[in-house]
Amino acid sequence: MKQNNQVGSTKSVPMKANEISSDGSFKRQTNRFITPFGNNSNELPVEANRYRLLWTAACPWAHRTVIVRKILGLDNVISLGTASPLRPKTTQVDWEFSLDEGGVDPILGIQYMSEIYQKTDSEYKGRPTVPVMVDLKAQQVANNDYFRLTNYFETEWKPFHKENAPNLYPKDLCGEIDALNDVIFHDINNGVYKCGFALSQEVYEEAFDRLFARLDELEERLSTQRFLFGDYITDSDVRLYSTLVRFDVAYYTAFHTNRNLIKEFPNLGGYVRDLYQTPGFGDTTDFDAIKQHYHVSITIFVDKEDVKILPKGPDLSGWNAPHHRETLSNSKEKFLIDN
Amino acid sequence: MKQNNQVGSTKSVPMKANEISSDGSFKRQTNRFITPFGNNSNELPVEANRYRLLWTAACPWAHRTVIVRKILGLDNVISLGTASPLRPKTTQVDWEFSLDEGGVDPILGIQYMSEIYQKTDSEYKGRPTVPVMVDLKAQQVANNDYFRLTNYFETEWKPFHKENAPNLYPKDLCGEIDALNDVIFHDINNGVYKCGFALSQEVYEEAFDRLFARLDELEERLSTQRFLFGDYITDSDVRLYSTLVRFDVAYYTAFHTNRNLIKEFPNLGGYVRDLYQTPGFGDTTDFDAIKQHYHVSITIFVDKEDVKILPKGPDLSGWNAPHHRETLSNSKEKFLIDN
Repeated sequence: MKQNNQVGSTKSVPMKANEISSDGSFKRQTNRFITPFGNNSNELPVEANRYRLLWTAACPWAHRTVIVRKILGLDNVISLGTASPLRPKTTQVDWEFSLDEGGVDPILGIQYMSEIYQKTDSEYKGRPTVPVMVDLKAQQVANNDYFRLTNYFETEWKPFHKENAPNLYPKDLCGEIDALNDVIFHDINNGVYKCGFALSQEVYEEAFDRLFARLDELEERLSTQRFLFGDYITDSDVRLYSTLVRFDVAYYTAFHTNRNLIKEFPNLGGYVRDLYQTPGFGDTTDFDAIKQHYHVSITIFVDKEDVKILPKGPDLSGWNAPHHRETLSNSKEKFLIDN
Repeated sequence: MKQNNQVGSTKSVPMKANEISSDGSFKRQTNRFITPFGNNSNELPVEANRYRLLWTAACPWAHRTVIVRKILGLDNVISLGTASPLRPKTTQVDWEFSLDEGGVDPILGIQYMSEIYQKTDSEYKGRPTVPVMVDLKAQQVANNDYFRLTNYFETEWKPFHKENAPNLYPKDLCGEIDALNDVIFHDINNGVYKCGFALSQEVYEEAFDRLFARLDELEERLSTQRFLFGDYITDSDVRLYSTLVRFDVAYYTAFHTNRNLIKEFPNLGGYVRDLYQTPGFGDTTDFDAIKQHYHVSITIFVDKEDVKILPKGPDLSGWNAPHHRETLSNSKEKFLIDN
């Protein structure tokens, strides 16, 4: 994949090359805008109708904020701007509001995600990522902390939760949820990207093994309980969902995570369908957008064309398993022997 | 994928570009060496130890000849030369004997498949394909007719079949076998290539739909009988096997044939495992070679880098199916509601 010419743009666009370590592994950039929401003067004020959440339906990091926003009823107080799942032709790292009339976000009036980042900090050199909470008063990025944003929604934004909103982050479970979220982040959410963006076979295989070891562990955990922490959906389930729901349609093929499809796991397969069928999950899942992004418009490293990864899967263990086909036959022999 | 420089070769190497129609569809080249085996003076004489069959374990067209050769015991009278599944770095269409000591076929003394084609016809412009039967006496290509070669083995080569060799092509079924082979060829054997090599979304989707419509039909056919023609394995089963056994490890991902894995089909899945567990099938199937070829070293069209195909699969019909996960829960609610 050649880098496209930056038609219509004079800005230099940062490629992901600076997110690749010397061993060929992917190191996701850290977030630049991480001021927390809260009541202190140095925190972002929690106010109805002050912020606009920008996302694309393709992105798992953005998707989880949109799920939690909906489950908690914050869609009444935080508006939503939706960028196209297809990267703009001019860059490989930006997002574009081409789904909107006139090709601009109707509230912010911007065509590209990078514009709001540049307005906020003209020195900003990172990728213009989603999710991002934009302060409509300041017309600037307030927070793009994809890791903590759902937690802010669950805690600091409580005053604006709808009536009888569920508790996705119960106080007595916070520590355990945080610990599991960390594991889910490194081995699963970001784990699939480590597989897909690896620039060496060794680094890819290491990420592949960690990913499936963790999925096997969660498969076992979900054999005796409906959700990750028992009977009720928590923040951790949202985070796991956003990767699992993309797995079979995108990562399995595009990121070489092909030991097994999620639907081949009896428990994980049923679990992700259970969540999909829950309001807030399936109704915010756009398979077309996900497929378009990962298969047609994924950001590719400049020099990826020289790297060939051999997929470690699929699982071949079933080839010698019993098939019971002999019960369909009248003959004990499989071959016709002429005499 | 850029075309590699033809290091170490001064010959012009024909690319597949001439096998692409104006609508972006793949039209496989016709065979050049199609003189039949037989007893007439204008036919190729059937003689023990006169021919060497050249193949690579990656290639489905070659694989089927190797399966039939083994089932019929012709491995005693036709020797086998094995090229690497990886295309040589110097060209994208040749095959190389790099698995052999010294990098040359021990009998023919050639490094590249193209050498025997050039020795036979210095004007030969097609791809140097496998399978190919080489006449060791003339040191020339005798026959590269991948479509009919198994039939010659089954009929003309009968004098050299092992004792109690099975009949894969019974006279009373020849007409039906030929008719089904034709369907299997166009929609399945070559159908996966039509998907993988399509240069337009429309052409890809048409091939995808035909492929899975045919697989659905065969899934139904195999629900009441063990093999395609009942209780016994025939030539048609060999042809279907060579594509099915490559499907989940190669085509599903590399050729975008991802509506379903073959192991998701109850009957086709059991059927292909039944064949795999039959001498001649599984013991000639080299999954490593297949994976290496299709994922790392497949011949790519010169201009394929400009074409993005959106995979039509996977099948999303299961997302709203019952999951029965609620039986694991003590609560009727999925969410914890604080009061």
